[in-house]
Amino acid sequence: MRQSRRGQVDPFIVMDVMERARLAEASGRKVIHMEVGQPSTPAPALARQALAKALNAGEMMGYTVALGLPALRQGIAELYRRWYGVDLDPARVVITSGSSAAFILTFSALFDAGDRVALGEPGYPSYRQILRAMSLTPVGIPTSAADRYQPRPDQIPRDAAGLLIASPGNPSGTMLDKAQLAALASRCAADDIALISDEIYHGLSYGRKCHTALEVTDEVFVINSFSKFFSMTGWRIGWIVVPESHIRTVERIAQNMFICPSHPGQVAALAALGAEDELRRHLAVYADNRALLMKALPAMGFADIAPPDGAFYIYADVSAMTDDSLAFAAEILDRTGVAVTPGLDFDPVRGRRTLRFSYARATSEIAEGMTRLARFMASR
Amino acid sequence: MRQSRRGQVDPFIVMDVMERARLAEASGRKVIHMEVGQPSTPAPALARQALAKALNAGEMMGYTVALGLPALRQGIAELYRRWYGVDLDPARVVITSGSSAAFILTFSALFDAGDRVALGEPGYPSYRQILRAMSLTPVGIPTSAADRYQPRPDQIPRDAAGLLIASPGNPSGTMLDKAQLAALASRCAADDIALISDEIYHGLSYGRKCHTALEVTDEVFVINSFSKFFSMTGWRIGWIVVPESHIRTVERIAQNMFICPSHPGQVAALAALGAEDELRRHLAVYADNRALLMKALPAMGFADIAPPDGAFYIYADVSAMTDDSLAFAAEILDRTGVAVTPGLDFDPVRGRRTLRFSYARATSEIAEGMTRLARFMASR
Repeated sequence: MRQSRRGQVDPFIVMDVMERARLAEASGRKVIHMEVGQPSTPAPALARQALAKALNAGEMMGYTVALGLPALRQGIAELYRRWYGVDLDPARVVITSGSSAAFILTFSALFDAGDRVALGEPGYPSYRQILRAMSLTPVGIPTSAADRYQPRPDQIPRDAAGLLIASPGNPSGTMLDKAQLAALASRCAADDIALISDEIYHGLSYGRKCHTALEVTDEVFVINSFSKFFSMTGWRIGWIVVPESHIRTVERIAQNMFICPSHPGQVAALAALGAEDELRRHLAVYADNRALLMKALPAMGFADIAPPDGAFYIYADVSAMTDDSLAFAAEILDRTGVAVTPGLDFDPVRGRRTLRFSYARATSEIAEGMTRLARFMASR
Repeated sequence: MRQSRRGQVDPFIVMDVMERARLAEASGRKVIHMEVGQPSTPAPALARQALAKALNAGEMMGYTVALGLPALRQGIAELYRRWYGVDLDPARVVITSGSSAAFILTFSALFDAGDRVALGEPGYPSYRQILRAMSLTPVGIPTSAADRYQPRPDQIPRDAAGLLIASPGNPSGTMLDKAQLAALASRCAADDIALISDEIYHGLSYGRKCHTALEVTDEVFVINSFSKFFSMTGWRIGWIVVPESHIRTVERIAQNMFICPSHPGQVAALAALGAEDELRRHLAVYADNRALLMKALPAMGFADIAPPDGAFYIYADVSAMTDDSLAFAAEILDRTGVAVTPGLDFDPVRGRRTLRFSYARATSEIAEGMTRLARFMASR
């Protein structure tokens, strides 16, 4: 049967690492997972309890309206006031099946086949692949360690239809401050470039405060989700804040492309909004892990890292050690049982000389990983 | 901010009916819902219990692998043996976020921007809108009551890249038999047209047995979901059976576009596979409702209907009464409090002279709807 050209997207390289790690585990080995981009904690207790109660009560949980439960949209609008002091009309909040569906909706509403969308490299690999699968053209902006892996306004190509930014970034964990966000938004407004701000790691920052693009402009699609800070990756509940001018367009696309996000997931997400106490305890764990890595990694030779402001990743330049990050990650896994991600997922060119360390697991596990890695590095 | 052309999809007309019905209810009126396309029953007890148990145990429920929980894929493969006697490799089963995501994945894997995809009219309105939002061109095949609202092989345009069929169909409820399926598949194979078979209403049939396209060919994308027979609309768990040649392509697209379907939803769906006893009791209710409508509707003047083999809809030609189904549906709602769907959602041209009656609710409610409608029709 026929296959499309746009469907021939690249695989996730980290999936191969995960499969290799699974095989190691199947053979009885204890693997330290520093490759995965998700918390090891379940959804907050309040979220799980709220859904269990609805299930026991036999609630129907049929389709919700396409844009999501009104109470959840209201709760998210309140989060913007609480976290950023931003006054947000709940009508602009669109609940989605994870940030994944948020990207599909956003790209559908903004871009036509052939349009060019700029994004910083390194970056989340699926940005490129979703764009390609939707007949759009990703245009990579090579960012530098000096710019803390974030794009500058002067780097945005004039013919771009859109710009996709991420703060805190994945894999770098670096953030854009308010002035940088304003400069990027201003450049986009001047050249009719649609600005999309991926804020999925908001709530996970260490010292510096996360700024939403909504603090500097209303002319932006802001994408976020319950996956990271709210520890609900598998639940697939995310959201978009859209400009008022785009609510009806996004609603019609959502009605047809998705009908609605998971109703049980929305019930749980609504309760998760009240669970910040529990979630801040996870954050304290990540902060400990980050401090541990920031000390241990340079000591064993991973000196060239951008100190991450947020998320739970450290991106390290390993050009002094290898120009084949894929083989290097495989060697580390085979020799130490520590799974890490080769940079090629995030930067198709320069990623040959980078690794990403994820520190989302328990501190004892991260500490064990560092001990093993130090022994390996000392033996090279 | 810019808007795309492809994002300008049509709204669901039934949404306006539902909003009008909501307003009537808010003013204290008892509305009989014969417009909605979903069961009024919750997920099966076994499904709700299985998930509640996982929640109480604090299971993490992070990302699953992109194609879904292996046990669920296995369970669905077994369903094909049980229901149709088809031997299916579970590797060909792809779990999706409802049939909505199944369509997005399928279209991405098969078609490039500009490709033409044929589909029968009347049909599920979102087919057209999803195709448009993905820069594809829907090509309507006008089907007739004489053909029981299903397309014939000779009606498929030669330049089509794909053909989308639905059996039981929505809004007609009519089915394709095995010989018809084989003839359509054979025509598609001859002209390199990708065949997509929407089987979302399987399990809901009255007398005749539903046949899956997999009984006549492996060269087909079969789409189904837990929404209808399994009574889990709001849970957003569906599936695709793909040809072996397309597994890797669909997996890579799914990894990037969706990461995975809802993990809690998959846990519930797995348990729902064991709940056929409970679900067959729902089917018995629909069968009673169908018999009631098949008697009551012709008696009050809705004589021109294709007796539905399956699903929970009756599609009626009302050209003797009106050529403005939108106004007629509004008049029925205003005068009787019975909400029905104007045919324009399903057939942009001929739908001006058709109505769809849904009979998914409790029998007492459907009976009350018929009483009110008969009184109204007698008074015209």
